[in-house]
Amino acid sequence: MHDASHAELDARIRASFDRQAFMATLGAELTSVRAGEVVIELPFRADLTQQHGFLHAGAVASVVDSACGYAALSVMEAGTAVLSVEFKINLMAPAAGTRFRATGRVLRAGRTLTVCAGEAHAVREGKSDALIAIMQATMMGVRDRAGLTD
Amino acid sequence: MHDASHAELDARIRASFDRQAFMATLGAELTSVRAGEVVIELPFRADLTQQHGFLHAGAVASVVDSACGYAALSVMEAGTAVLSVEFKINLMAPAAGTRFRATGRVLRAGRTLTVCAGEAHAVREGKSDALIAIMQATMMGVRDRAGLTD
Amino acid sequence: MHDASHAELDARIRASFDRQAFMATLGAELTSVRAGEVVIELPFRADLTQQHGFLHAGAVASVVDSACGYAALSVMEAGTAVLSVEFKINLMAPAAGTRFRATGRVLRAGRTLTVCAGEAHAVREGKSDALIAIMQATMMGVRDRAGLTD
Amino acid sequence: MHDASHAELDARIRASFDRQAFMATLGAELTSVRAGEVVIELPFRADLTQQHGFLHAGAVASVVDSACGYAALSVMEAGTAVLSVEFKINLMAPAAGTRFRATGRVLRAGRTLTVCAGEAHAVREGKSDALIAIMQATMMGVRDRAGLTD
Repeated sequence: MHDASHAELDARIRASFDRQAFMATLGAELTSVRAGEVVIELPFRADLTQQHGFLHAGAVASVVDSACGYAALSVMEAGTAVLSVEFKINLMAPAAGTRFRATGRVLRAGRTLTVCAGEAHAVREGKSDALIAIMQATMMGVRDRAGLTD
Repeated sequence: MHDASHAELDARIRASFDRQAFMATLGAELTSVRAGEVVIELPFRADLTQQHGFLHAGAVASVVDSACGYAALSVMEAGTAVLSVEFKINLMAPAAGTRFRATGRVLRAGRTLTVCAGEAHAVREGKSDALIAIMQATMMGVRDRAGLTD
Repeated sequence: MHDASHAELDARIRASFDRQAFMATLGAELTSVRAGEVVIELPFRADLTQQHGFLHAGAVASVVDSACGYAALSVMEAGTAVLSVEFKINLMAPAAGTRFRATGRVLRAGRTLTVCAGEAHAVREGKSDALIAIMQATMMGVRDRAGLTD
Repeated sequence: MHDASHAELDARIRASFDRQAFMATLGAELTSVRAGEVVIELPFRADLTQQHGFLHAGAVASVVDSACGYAALSVMEAGTAVLSVEFKINLMAPAAGTRFRATGRVLRAGRTLTVCAGEAHAVREGKSDALIAIMQATMMGVRDRAGLTD
């Protein structure tokens, strides 16, 4: 894993997150960056729901995938770009809540591939947070390819 | 598999799709409904991209998940609701294109669970369509639960 | 989750494990049973390897799948049978070791489906155990179907 | 994709398959090799079953994983080794039959990663073959690493 001051790391991840237009479209916020663990939060919005009024599985997957991708990026050298190779998500409970918290953690950082575990919690008024989804994701670091950076 | 006239089937799926607010937010369109196979199309929009300007993996997953869910719903009895239990997606090529076509197909419709295969193609100017992602998804039919319908 | 004395639980899971002929064929041993968590161990054998001399990914998957299945069964009522609906495994490091330990844990026990997380560690002489694989699995409880029990 | 005469290709894949001791332990047979598609067959044996007498999910996964791995290897240059990065399998019907046929197909062969689709059919006396499982798998080609070959 690459060593960096926390401020450098936070700035690097945040700069890339700010270029992920889709995160802004969803209203997602990058709330925590540490080497190997990134948290993204998503306030509930009615325009992100499926037909029963819960957050759409795709919206849940989107923020957990980004959290995993940035967790992977956080342990790569500066100048490396990260791509999602694949992910798998189990949706364990209806995505009902006022806010959702997606956490991505690096389980193994390899030369080429980084394996991450992700999860999503729903924040519910007056209740403890509920684990609503878990993810396993494979991320790939790419250098100098098609001019991609971060 | 439940029998229905095509018009009834199309109307039933379309009514549910129209209640998936997230699909409207993405700009997704339901373009084909057949028993066991549903197609959703998504025009490229810059506000759906990741940091390199390609469609975000989560946006791709969202439309393929919905296509799979509606393919499953299309073979269930009217009055049944469908939930995504889990899905896994491989992102095989950058999601670059002017338009994306997500197809969901039922591989096995069981009493409780329906297994679907999904794929996403990118439509590229002057080129043949490119297969950019594949999905395996498990959907669950739910009746009379919490008043969910379709 | 169903309540049972530990001795009853252990006996119930062990009786089913002993009927899984494939576990005996692999040489796998049921080493720990608790409500919601089951451990299966597999000593290395040369006849379980792939072409480079490491344990075959399928052998790893087999014991983690069984550990997940029995973790799920451990929280179901007696008389219920468990089937693997699907699983996904990331193989994070070569399965090199003298012994492998597969752990299955229940993350959510639902009415119909139970979601489990699995992992495999390699035991290596004079080294700390290495996490070599992680799994997400969906298990289904089935009652009175085709006479299946446990 | 690498070009090779069919005889060379068949010999190369078969040589590696013959070194997968686990395939021999299961009684699996390599029955078809083409560039991008490999078939492995597994006769039913009572010592490969789970607690209800069906083929164990892990045995099914093992042969489909190998079929996918060899499909990937079949489109790589000679001298490359293949490793399973991850796979996901949906078990759609009980693995009941006299014989099982696992097919692996390459969907995308990349510089580093190859994505495969796998499936397993059960051969049943006097009935048409039944699709019992589907897989998505990611394979990695490795050259000159730890002396691995094929």
